[in-house]
Amino acid sequence: MAKYFDISFIGSGNVASHLAKAMENAGHFVHEIYSRNPENAKALIGKLYNTAAQEHLDFSRSKARIFFLAASDNAIPELAAEIILPPNALLVHTSGSVPLSQLGYASDRIGVFYPLQTFSKSKKIDLREVPILIEAEDKKVEKELWSLARTLSRKIEKVNSNNRKIIHIAAVFACNFTNHLLAISNDMLEKQKVDFELLKPLIVETINKGLSIGPENAQTGPAVRNDLQTLDNHMAYLEYDESLQEIYKVISQHIIDSNYSDK
Amino acid sequence: MAKYFDISFIGSGNVASHLAKAMENAGHFVHEIYSRNPENAKALIGKLYNTAAQEHLDFSRSKARIFFLAASDNAIPELAAEIILPPNALLVHTSGSVPLSQLGYASDRIGVFYPLQTFSKSKKIDLREVPILIEAEDKKVEKELWSLARTLSRKIEKVNSNNRKIIHIAAVFACNFTNHLLAISNDMLEKQKVDFELLKPLIVETINKGLSIGPENAQTGPAVRNDLQTLDNHMAYLEYDESLQEIYKVISQHIIDSNYSDK
Repeated sequence: MAKYFDISFIGSGNVASHLAKAMENAGHFVHEIYSRNPENAKALIGKLYNTAAQEHLDFSRSKARIFFLAASDNAIPELAAEIILPPNALLVHTSGSVPLSQLGYASDRIGVFYPLQTFSKSKKIDLREVPILIEAEDKKVEKELWSLARTLSRKIEKVNSNNRKIIHIAAVFACNFTNHLLAISNDMLEKQKVDFELLKPLIVETINKGLSIGPENAQTGPAVRNDLQTLDNHMAYLEYDESLQEIYKVISQHIIDSNYSDK
Repeated sequence: MAKYFDISFIGSGNVASHLAKAMENAGHFVHEIYSRNPENAKALIGKLYNTAAQEHLDFSRSKARIFFLAASDNAIPELAAEIILPPNALLVHTSGSVPLSQLGYASDRIGVFYPLQTFSKSKKIDLREVPILIEAEDKKVEKELWSLARTLSRKIEKVNSNNRKIIHIAAVFACNFTNHLLAISNDMLEKQKVDFELLKPLIVETINKGLSIGPENAQTGPAVRNDLQTLDNHMAYLEYDESLQEIYKVISQHIIDSNYSDK
């Protein structure tokens, strides 16, 4: 008994691309894509069935009823201020860190639809296991977002702007920073012509272990053993790159100060 | 046509525990466990079939022929200097960062047997996919270590002391630091009574993506978008903990400086 929604997107980046395709796959109609970069909009439209590129923000004649503002965080308030919507349209943004209130007076019906996932153009994602965090002040809007989200995912959570921001920051630590550490590690091995492949079983086990017994019970390595000699040794090796030394020092110190074993 | 080895362990920490049990499972004999902490030695022996606790470092009458020095890095040189081995015994350490040469003159036959994995007492590990990095100057010793390692794992690599150290540092970044970031993230959510479970699909996808398309192609988040407003916002939220701010700043700056999109 799925209900189909009429949707347009403002934005054509990673989030817009993945969401627009997922919306189509779930049977919804994606009417227009607006992007400040018309090339990007065209590239995305090429992957959709029957969607028009729109080069202005006047959507008063659009058949869409839900408008996804999937743009960069700092563009959201200005786009919301400029957009012209049909009567009774629902405007939502998809950002982790932008408060609902920043949609301002663009519509009486506003909300947030934040898929808690990392989107890269070259990797397809199954959204069914991706939590979608929704927010709306109006209960009817909340219900509408809930029923839309349910067509994409099994995990919907109502989360207010403050908690959504904190979840986003926690995700930056656990995911964005984590990926960067993998990249640093990869670079370091590449320099020595050692295959990054070698580390993969260790990385997979680290994550599996952290998620199954809890990261607070899974910490290993020289810092948590307070093995100062090895820490010094590693710092000496990293002398070729001060910024890596700084990262090494700051995180190791934080591990030492966390008193893992006392927990 | 597996060959069975006679082995003893000096040390009873996580590495010794996992290796001793794995050695037994592979059909080898674990004769003695020595530990500076006799309680730990007893606990480990309780999990093995027929192993004695030894309270001194005189192994001259031991039936073992391979001695695993699985102790903390800074204890390795002193233990190697004190230990008394039977004639022709092979002494190996299991450390990522200690050079082979630190085993000194304990025996003519010395080597390194470094399982590239994270070991915690409460989590069993299947060693078959764990790379074991071996090193020896003597070709016969190398061959012996290789055939022992093959009884535990499918992935054996010959790696010299310098490269092993670098692999270990890369592993500290990719694994020890990564787990700590998960712990930070977990703490942050706990404070707000948000279930860490919510982040798990994102964490799993982050790692899968990084390992499949390469971390250099997988970076997302505010820093790589150079979204200074969100970075400021997050820094402001983290004001309750200066050390978290420092980690946030140092890693974000490093992401910005890495010019991901230019790669």
